[in-house]
Amino acid sequence: MSRVSGDVGAQETVTTDTASFQCHSEAPYIHKVCIPPKQNLLHEFTARVKETFFADDPLRQFKDQPWSRKFIIGIQSVFPILEWGRHYNLTKFKGDLIAGLTIASLCIPQDIGYAKLANLAPQYGLYSSFVPPLVYAFMGSSRDIAIGPVAVISLLLGALLQDEIDPDIHPLEYRRLAFTATFFAGITQVMLGFFRLGFLIDFLSHAAVVGFMAGAAITIALQQLKGLLGIKKFTKNTDIVSVMQSVWSTVNHGWNWQTIVIGVTFLAFLLLAKYIGKKNRKLFWVPAIAPLISVILSTFFVYITRADKHNVAIVGKIEKGVNPSSVKEIFFTGTYLAKGFKIGVVAGMIALTEAIAIARTFATLKDYQIDGNKEMIALGTMNVVGSLTSCYVTTGSFSRSAVNCMSGCYTAVSNIVMSCVVLLTLELITPLFKYTPNAILASIIISAVLGLIDIEAVKLIWKIDKFDFVACMGAFFGVVFVSVEIGLLIAVSISFAKILLQVTRPRTSVLGKLPRTTVYRNILQYPGATKVPGVLIVRVDSAIYFSNSNYIRERIMRWLGDEEEYLKENNQPRIQYLIVEMSPVTDIDTSGIHALEGLHGSLQKRDIQLVLANPGPAVIEKLHASNFTNLIGEDKIFLTVSDAVVTCAPKIEQA
Amino acid sequence: MSRVSGDVGAQETVTTDTASFQCHSEAPYIHKVCIPPKQNLLHEFTARVKETFFADDPLRQFKDQPWSRKFIIGIQSVFPILEWGRHYNLTKFKGDLIAGLTIASLCIPQDIGYAKLANLAPQYGLYSSFVPPLVYAFMGSSRDIAIGPVAVISLLLGALLQDEIDPDIHPLEYRRLAFTATFFAGITQVMLGFFRLGFLIDFLSHAAVVGFMAGAAITIALQQLKGLLGIKKFTKNTDIVSVMQSVWSTVNHGWNWQTIVIGVTFLAFLLLAKYIGKKNRKLFWVPAIAPLISVILSTFFVYITRADKHNVAIVGKIEKGVNPSSVKEIFFTGTYLAKGFKIGVVAGMIALTEAIAIARTFATLKDYQIDGNKEMIALGTMNVVGSLTSCYVTTGSFSRSAVNCMSGCYTAVSNIVMSCVVLLTLELITPLFKYTPNAILASIIISAVLGLIDIEAVKLIWKIDKFDFVACMGAFFGVVFVSVEIGLLIAVSISFAKILLQVTRPRTSVLGKLPRTTVYRNILQYPGATKVPGVLIVRVDSAIYFSNSNYIRERIMRWLGDEEEYLKENNQPRIQYLIVEMSPVTDIDTSGIHALEGLHGSLQKRDIQLVLANPGPAVIEKLHASNFTNLIGEDKIFLTVSDAVVTCAPKIEQA
Repeated sequence: MSRVSGDVGAQETVTTDTASFQCHSEAPYIHKVCIPPKQNLLHEFTARVKETFFADDPLRQFKDQPWSRKFIIGIQSVFPILEWGRHYNLTKFKGDLIAGLTIASLCIPQDIGYAKLANLAPQYGLYSSFVPPLVYAFMGSSRDIAIGPVAVISLLLGALLQDEIDPDIHPLEYRRLAFTATFFAGITQVMLGFFRLGFLIDFLSHAAVVGFMAGAAITIALQQLKGLLGIKKFTKNTDIVSVMQSVWSTVNHGWNWQTIVIGVTFLAFLLLAKYIGKKNRKLFWVPAIAPLISVILSTFFVYITRADKHNVAIVGKIEKGVNPSSVKEIFFTGTYLAKGFKIGVVAGMIALTEAIAIARTFATLKDYQIDGNKEMIALGTMNVVGSLTSCYVTTGSFSRSAVNCMSGCYTAVSNIVMSCVVLLTLELITPLFKYTPNAILASIIISAVLGLIDIEAVKLIWKIDKFDFVACMGAFFGVVFVSVEIGLLIAVSISFAKILLQVTRPRTSVLGKLPRTTVYRNILQYPGATKVPGVLIVRVDSAIYFSNSNYIRERIMRWLGDEEEYLKENNQPRIQYLIVEMSPVTDIDTSGIHALEGLHGSLQKRDIQLVLANPGPAVIEKLHASNFTNLIGEDKIFLTVSDAVVTCAPKIEQA
Repeated sequence: MSRVSGDVGAQETVTTDTASFQCHSEAPYIHKVCIPPKQNLLHEFTARVKETFFADDPLRQFKDQPWSRKFIIGIQSVFPILEWGRHYNLTKFKGDLIAGLTIASLCIPQDIGYAKLANLAPQYGLYSSFVPPLVYAFMGSSRDIAIGPVAVISLLLGALLQDEIDPDIHPLEYRRLAFTATFFAGITQVMLGFFRLGFLIDFLSHAAVVGFMAGAAITIALQQLKGLLGIKKFTKNTDIVSVMQSVWSTVNHGWNWQTIVIGVTFLAFLLLAKYIGKKNRKLFWVPAIAPLISVILSTFFVYITRADKHNVAIVGKIEKGVNPSSVKEIFFTGTYLAKGFKIGVVAGMIALTEAIAIARTFATLKDYQIDGNKEMIALGTMNVVGSLTSCYVTTGSFSRSAVNCMSGCYTAVSNIVMSCVVLLTLELITPLFKYTPNAILASIIISAVLGLIDIEAVKLIWKIDKFDFVACMGAFFGVVFVSVEIGLLIAVSISFAKILLQVTRPRTSVLGKLPRTTVYRNILQYPGATKVPGVLIVRVDSAIYFSNSNYIRERIMRWLGDEEEYLKENNQPRIQYLIVEMSPVTDIDTSGIHALEGLHGSLQKRDIQLVLANPGPAVIEKLHASNFTNLIGEDKIFLTVSDAVVTCAPKIEQA
């Protein structure tokens, strides 16, 4: 008996009992199909639960440790900083310092702009770049992610909140609802992590996310036309048709040429900086520093020329000082509680999807491990704490994380550095932003969100999978032409439709023998494969469950019908054996066994023998338990298709 | 090149182009993995749609037919009676007549009782056994199904309607809502059939249905204690706790001994008849005729003794005459429209599940074909017409269908016969039911619903699949201890949870070589299988999609980690090749390819080569399109695991 590694979850007991194996190899070339040893029911159940919720085996390091050590490991697993902090040194700090300063210079102007996307006052953007990154630095396990407000979540939150409360009429209620939503976004994230339901975010397909992000980027960029063109009256809708109508209807007397000059000039500058950074990877700091330079230059320019008197819209006074408490602002009762909860769940899930994707990307790049569920707890805690300190929903920003990584960060300390810079900004220099023109913020946002449009990814999706492409485009057009919510709904629906398709319509294929081998392969893929006269070999490519059992039965009968029709037309001998290759059938349930029984019954009426090849461990066990093996006969179950054919072929009667 | 049968949907074009096949077999024993010929995009798309929605190829018979013939086939496919009616003869009619009379005798007392379950007056039960079976006989394709009101749907409809309107206070509105729900149940069924969404009902797992039915049977039986014990004041709740409280609290002065004597006597008679029918299959007509005999005897007895004066509750006057029109009673506006719609959708889906299961069972038994989607249109039409003629939701009754089949029915004419008998009953003899004691109806319902409790099926589910058993018990206890709606919700949720589990946590296994073969199998199933030193072979048992791609990547890395740890402890040579057996991987999407790229990257860092064995047609095509084959090298992709091992093993460096 071969060795079985000791720590494989579902099958730990396997090594213990060899007597129960029912393996006999009587003929020298034929191994019989083995039935795996019966497992203890409770053990089987816990193994299944473990594989589902603890697939990454998070408690592994606790094994065989004394209690005191367990306690320390426990604390360290909640606050990873305690672990990596011990190996922290000056070299690492140098890297983190530079990276932190770079992302701070990038985030400060972005924060002010993104707060506007969420219909909040500018300081709330800055607040959100102070507390949450600090919390994350202590609890998070990603070394490269840069935490703070991001464009898509700001837009989504703004759109969802605006449906409930008008931010212009009831700014206080609006802000309170925003904190409520942030609170529940955090709670949602913590809960998903705590109950190990992190896999739920995997249900949003990559393609749908790409489309959604690109659509959101276009929508955000369009929204910035307001600031860039100096338009005063602007639609609240986010779809492209309403926005373009708003833009064109104001072309004669709503646009402000001074604003346009400032905005377009600096937009050109920012895009040029971006281009330079892209061309020469060593100059990555050029686009990173460009937004802050633009802000300083344009603010100085407006202040000197007093352009605000010529209708150039400026940011205005930003509240000075560190985050005030917002504990009492959260709605814990009333109708807004439910609304805040709903919005929070949606925003929290999307924020998670983005953050986890970023964390995973950089972890793969630098080859370290990310624990998805632990990460969720960190992100959730950071949002809960944020909601109590006047922050709105934050997550990982892809562009800033990339800059962080390229600037040479080593650990999450770069987030702490950024946080400190934002603190200093809040305490000291917010008044200086008074004369910053809105047009500059618009330019910065436009140049930032353009990075969310990933044309290469879309091209690849088109090349690889057309159905994914439809999902991608559906989400994209949903966002651009209708609204963010509809786009999101389309993305989720298409993702689910794909899953449902996968489980209801599994593939089946007819196999043929490759010449001069004992290998049987799909005859549509291998045109050289030949059929065995009198035998039809069908492979089923999925577990047989209630959701597809009827389809599989009917599909196999249709393969048979087609084959029989062809043979009849060509006067060839009729089919006498139907071999079902079960290798890919990993599991079967009661409905599946009923379907097989039905298939057996139908075949018997046509005088055809049902033969099974290579049923897996779970399947053979259930076929035995349900007595199906006796129904068709133990001798009809073979280890390989080749064995089955070798045994069946000589018995074929010549017509 | 082998022959490909001409009518296989997704792959029709395969035979046309052999030049594009990239198959070379240079080494004599190694076939290369083939890339299937590129398919026209539109063709691929239509093939996919066809396989999803038209898996049964319903338009096949229309092919290559002149227009006039197509028209006739079209009419016949809507009204199958036009086809089978042409071969109808006297022998068949004799069988159908006897079967029809038998099921009529069974359905009349049941109808009156079931109408009460739905909180409707008795005549509505009879109405529902007149029009719908007639409509079905013309449009349906099942030969054995017996149409009419059934216990579970009556209970479900009653419970759902009662939540909206109290039938005692507003009987008219209640009835109108019942017709509205019936109308939308029919519309739902027609739509599901028309848009070929019939597979949606497959999402209710067999196990959940078994549990739900058993729970509903217990609930219905408990409800009948009211009639059986002659209790006047009875709870409206259906859970076992409320009902038993109701029963015990009335034990001293609420029970009526005369009623109990009548009820229990006839219940014993009915159960005895059932037992006789079960013991001797030839006496199947005994239990079929027993209910009518009970009704006649007990009615006569009550009439003679005027037991109704001794507080024996009787049915009372039943409206005489044929179904009145209810077109104007349906709510087409107002708040009840939405409520009726919601209830209708739920009741319609459950009714479909039951009818299709019955139709399929008997079709398999007698070996004829049922077109699920066409069947749905027939059932839906029958309910829409029913809702306009004072009927409530009807479907196929399992017990009556079984009797129908055993009585020797040949075609749906037995439904017409039954329908005519019910018509005569409505026109002539309803007044005779006035003195029928309610206790008899209770006895009849109890003896009927006991058949819904399928202990054998539950035992089998327990033996085969523990997860299915949990689903079954969840639905059962939900119905019995809470309510029908909650039980249904549990059944649906557990079914979906199972599907989600299936797609997020596919199985993976480590393979080993069976001695003296070139066959590689799961080492946990085949303890004789041995590992190849320096090589780890992992099989992935599912399509790699966004929902599981991360899990699969992490799981493979965990297999590798476990293996490496073991090898290190035992001072064995390290792993140098990781072979992923892709046979069961039927498809891959962009997320899946990203996961493979990530896997390749991680392996490279550990100086391990990634090798793929036997990728299927869809997979190899996408691996090529995404350039992944070039990334790992074309020479790393093999036709079989055996080929891969033969090529890799000699290259392994000895540590």
